[in-house]
Amino acid sequence: MSETVDQYLLLRALVDELSRCGLAGACTSPGSRSTPLVLTLARHPGVPTWSHVDERCAAFFALGVAKATGRPAALACTSGTAAANYLPAIIEARESRVPLVVLTTDRPPELRDVGAGQTIDQVKLYGDVVKWFVEVGTHPATPERLRWIRQLACRAMWTAIDGRPGVVHLNLPLREPLVLTEELPDEGSVGGGGRPDGRPWVSRPAAPTGAAEAADALRPIVAAAERGVVVAGRDERGGRTGGRAVAAFAEAIGWPLLADPLSGARAGSAAIAHWDLMLRHAGFADATVPDVVLRVGDLPTSKPLRAWLAREEIGVQVALDPEGAWQDPSARLDLRLPYATAPALGAAVAAGLPRGPEAWLDAWRAADARTANAIVTAAGEDLTEIRVAAELGARLPASATLFVAASMPIRDVESFFGVRDDGPRVLANRGANGIDGTTSTAFGVAAGSPGPVVLLLGDVTLAHDLGGLLAAHRLRLPLTIVLIDNGGGGIFDFLPVASQRDAFEEHVATPTGLDPADVATLFGLDHRLVRDVGELRAAVDHGLASDGVTLVEVRSDRAANVRLHRRVTEAVQAELSGG
Amino acid sequence: MSETVDQYLLLRALVDELSRCGLAGACTSPGSRSTPLVLTLARHPGVPTWSHVDERCAAFFALGVAKATGRPAALACTSGTAAANYLPAIIEARESRVPLVVLTTDRPPELRDVGAGQTIDQVKLYGDVVKWFVEVGTHPATPERLRWIRQLACRAMWTAIDGRPGVVHLNLPLREPLVLTEELPDEGSVGGGGRPDGRPWVSRPAAPTGAAEAADALRPIVAAAERGVVVAGRDERGGRTGGRAVAAFAEAIGWPLLADPLSGARAGSAAIAHWDLMLRHAGFADATVPDVVLRVGDLPTSKPLRAWLAREEIGVQVALDPEGAWQDPSARLDLRLPYATAPALGAAVAAGLPRGPEAWLDAWRAADARTANAIVTAAGEDLTEIRVAAELGARLPASATLFVAASMPIRDVESFFGVRDDGPRVLANRGANGIDGTTSTAFGVAAGSPGPVVLLLGDVTLAHDLGGLLAAHRLRLPLTIVLIDNGGGGIFDFLPVASQRDAFEEHVATPTGLDPADVATLFGLDHRLVRDVGELRAAVDHGLASDGVTLVEVRSDRAANVRLHRRVTEAVQAELSGG
Repeated sequence: MSETVDQYLLLRALVDELSRCGLAGACTSPGSRSTPLVLTLARHPGVPTWSHVDERCAAFFALGVAKATGRPAALACTSGTAAANYLPAIIEARESRVPLVVLTTDRPPELRDVGAGQTIDQVKLYGDVVKWFVEVGTHPATPERLRWIRQLACRAMWTAIDGRPGVVHLNLPLREPLVLTEELPDEGSVGGGGRPDGRPWVSRPAAPTGAAEAADALRPIVAAAERGVVVAGRDERGGRTGGRAVAAFAEAIGWPLLADPLSGARAGSAAIAHWDLMLRHAGFADATVPDVVLRVGDLPTSKPLRAWLAREEIGVQVALDPEGAWQDPSARLDLRLPYATAPALGAAVAAGLPRGPEAWLDAWRAADARTANAIVTAAGEDLTEIRVAAELGARLPASATLFVAASMPIRDVESFFGVRDDGPRVLANRGANGIDGTTSTAFGVAAGSPGPVVLLLGDVTLAHDLGGLLAAHRLRLPLTIVLIDNGGGGIFDFLPVASQRDAFEEHVATPTGLDPADVATLFGLDHRLVRDVGELRAAVDHGLASDGVTLVEVRSDRAANVRLHRRVTEAVQAELSGG
Repeated sequence: MSETVDQYLLLRALVDELSRCGLAGACTSPGSRSTPLVLTLARHPGVPTWSHVDERCAAFFALGVAKATGRPAALACTSGTAAANYLPAIIEARESRVPLVVLTTDRPPELRDVGAGQTIDQVKLYGDVVKWFVEVGTHPATPERLRWIRQLACRAMWTAIDGRPGVVHLNLPLREPLVLTEELPDEGSVGGGGRPDGRPWVSRPAAPTGAAEAADALRPIVAAAERGVVVAGRDERGGRTGGRAVAAFAEAIGWPLLADPLSGARAGSAAIAHWDLMLRHAGFADATVPDVVLRVGDLPTSKPLRAWLAREEIGVQVALDPEGAWQDPSARLDLRLPYATAPALGAAVAAGLPRGPEAWLDAWRAADARTANAIVTAAGEDLTEIRVAAELGARLPASATLFVAASMPIRDVESFFGVRDDGPRVLANRGANGIDGTTSTAFGVAAGSPGPVVLLLGDVTLAHDLGGLLAAHRLRLPLTIVLIDNGGGGIFDFLPVASQRDAFEEHVATPTGLDPADVATLFGLDHRLVRDVGELRAAVDHGLASDGVTLVEVRSDRAANVRLHRRVTEAVQAELSGG
């Protein structure tokens, strides 16, 4: 057999095994060196593929696929800087703990660092960012080596998923010729096929939930608590099941549940919606210092919540931290439960935990209701940034996924989403909180979701990943994009830097000057400018029912938005002070 | 003094020293953590700044500035994935040996890896790719520490430039508050100012040219040669001076000069223009095997040239390699001159080197002239991709810079540019040969060049860096973009993968479906569709005289372009066979 045939046989075994292990799909990009890998992926019936011109978009798209499906997604690129464009999404995957398998093709050793074209040093290119790196090498496709590469594929997948999920990187050197001139032999004739019944070479049982151990650890703490609260943050792998388990747990023990929409737990009778605004009120924050805090998922980014959790009067702080995230910037955690996942809380309830005092929960719920009223009154009827977030939270169906950009939109979603038992799934790139790759991630979520997907983002975020809109043209995925166009990075107007007028607009706010209508024309989007809440609702409903990409433009003004947020905050302060 | 004042004082000293060492300018991007750095850069009168929404664009733009000016450019970004977006350009800078100073801001150690927002592990983020990494730390602004940071800035600049030029990375942790509420004290009151007369803290003399040593090493080799050739590749740091020195050297010793347009040496009476096509002719290649090859600059990417240089009949191969590039994929080099730069060849001539046989040079020149005629006849009068490259080579003024995309355009420029003593400067991203960041690099070249800049690229390359066009809107830099729109990655149609029809269009050719007229509308470009050579000339002339961005669209067809190239190659073969 020729070396080319060997390469194709080994790649076929590798890709087949990734598929058997549950690969959600693969993103390809154009190139020459990657030809054998890309053709093998495209020809495997069990691997959906999505083609991207820009590898940075491809990587964020794969991140979205993995987030939406809960399964690893693969990346496949040619040699050179192509692989370097993956780094931002790889870092986001590391920080948000999303499994990815990165397959870079490379020149073989004899063509590295000697002036051969499109060659860079790809060995350990991503450094410490990835969990596992393998320089795969070149091999004859013997049965032994085919078995080895199937094992390697399993190990790549399970390493990406196990413990703290993350990214694995396989670097695949390939020699010319890169295209087969003969028929590829079938597995029967060369050996090295997979296990019977399509199962993986190395199987992996479901991970333990740590339920019994969590119940044992929590029982005495919950029993002793008088003023317990549950704080629930982003937990994508827990998903809706995990979120509902947390909500049911809080309901069962009667503790106020301060849940970030990204937790999937802002539901049930114990959930408090407006804790971010409530905790800005010094009197309320003082009066509600808990004796026990139980944290599930990531730590929400809310500054008032973080300041409150940093208070030394709090008795005991416990965190479920099955992925080793160690999110505790104030160094206040007493107890980490490193093996307990959110569903473990269901078992803890079943094991019978005592219920906290009703008056404590009632006080939180009453303050939440008054805060909600104050927000509605102060925000008014106009179509503002606050109203857009609230509307999406109130109206999107349970079958929908809302993907929210970091920066202002996610903060508004945190602050202004209500409590809903049938709310949409909410996802965001909150590992490193970048605005990069947001549109591409949303398209990946659309590719990986059975229901409709809505993206909420601002104009600078849209501009940062403009090429991500090529997915509308090239992949024909449905998406409803709600664009807040306020002519710059609106979040910066809330920061002290806004006072530095000599450099603020040019270097910080960075208005792009792009007209959303022109963006829509370029990428073939269905553009709808909406001016009031009714038009927003109609446009979003249209988008949810469409199989194309709808761009819903909401115009805002950065200065007015700051004033609106201040007015709402002050109204909440007045309401809570007057109580 | 507050810690905030300390931070601003140290940053002011750092930026001042970078400026004294010749920093060409700095690219900023929006963010919060970067506030003190960005404000300091924007307020230094000696540092031009360019604001970019997308850090990947910023990094390629800085690369272009550094290429155009021959001086290091700086990058300044906020914490998180922002820094990761620099990697593609940093790798291109490493491979093409362009000096950059990367300044990333970061959270301080107590806020790393504990769930604080927008925080990633930035320590040694770029691994081996950079020449020097410094975790700068936080400090009181004492005179000692201000002196230290001035020395650090000098070391960063000189490290980026010295030996093999490349990238240095300083990671700058900054603590809140990030904005000054008081006036920054002047240097007189706090000490730690710079040297008198604006000179750097640590000065650096001009690097030696290795002239005398090169002359000594070359004299016996040149004297013994009967069939010597000079091969000149990309040498940006040598610039026009270096290229002209190479051309004068070849002229003086009467050796055929096979110069890539990127060498700046395709000039003078010894220069051969069409060696790429000539060496595809087996008979010509056999008949012209040299006994001595002298190489200057990078190895040109031409496959026929590389195959020819790999022949074992060649007696001696010598390379000037002052930057340690070791470009020798066929392992045929006998002698590397590690300290000799292109201008050293001028001194070698002055030292009196013997001239080679006239018949040898005459034979090359005659074949070149016949090849040129065959090309013109076969290519015809139509506006083809070949004709676009030839026209730009023939007509752009010496004051202009042509920035050429990797992939097809650079190959056409290599093949079809003629010999000109007053040709434009030609630049390209040929370190890693990626198509990423091409538009942004060209805008950076425009920012760093006194004369007009023309960018030649294809539609997939334009789509890969679509956000790069924001520079037209936001920075108002003049640029003439000549876009070859052939509906996909035209270079792949020349490769065997084009036969794999089941996956070729979707995964390899990747047509984008974008209409250049809509691109122009979105970014406010002056769009001109040209259909013949006369219109191309008029549109380029218009662009050269304009202070805006002109998008000249040339429509092509990938299949027809393959046929055209084959027809031209065959015509050259027939011409050289018939000789």
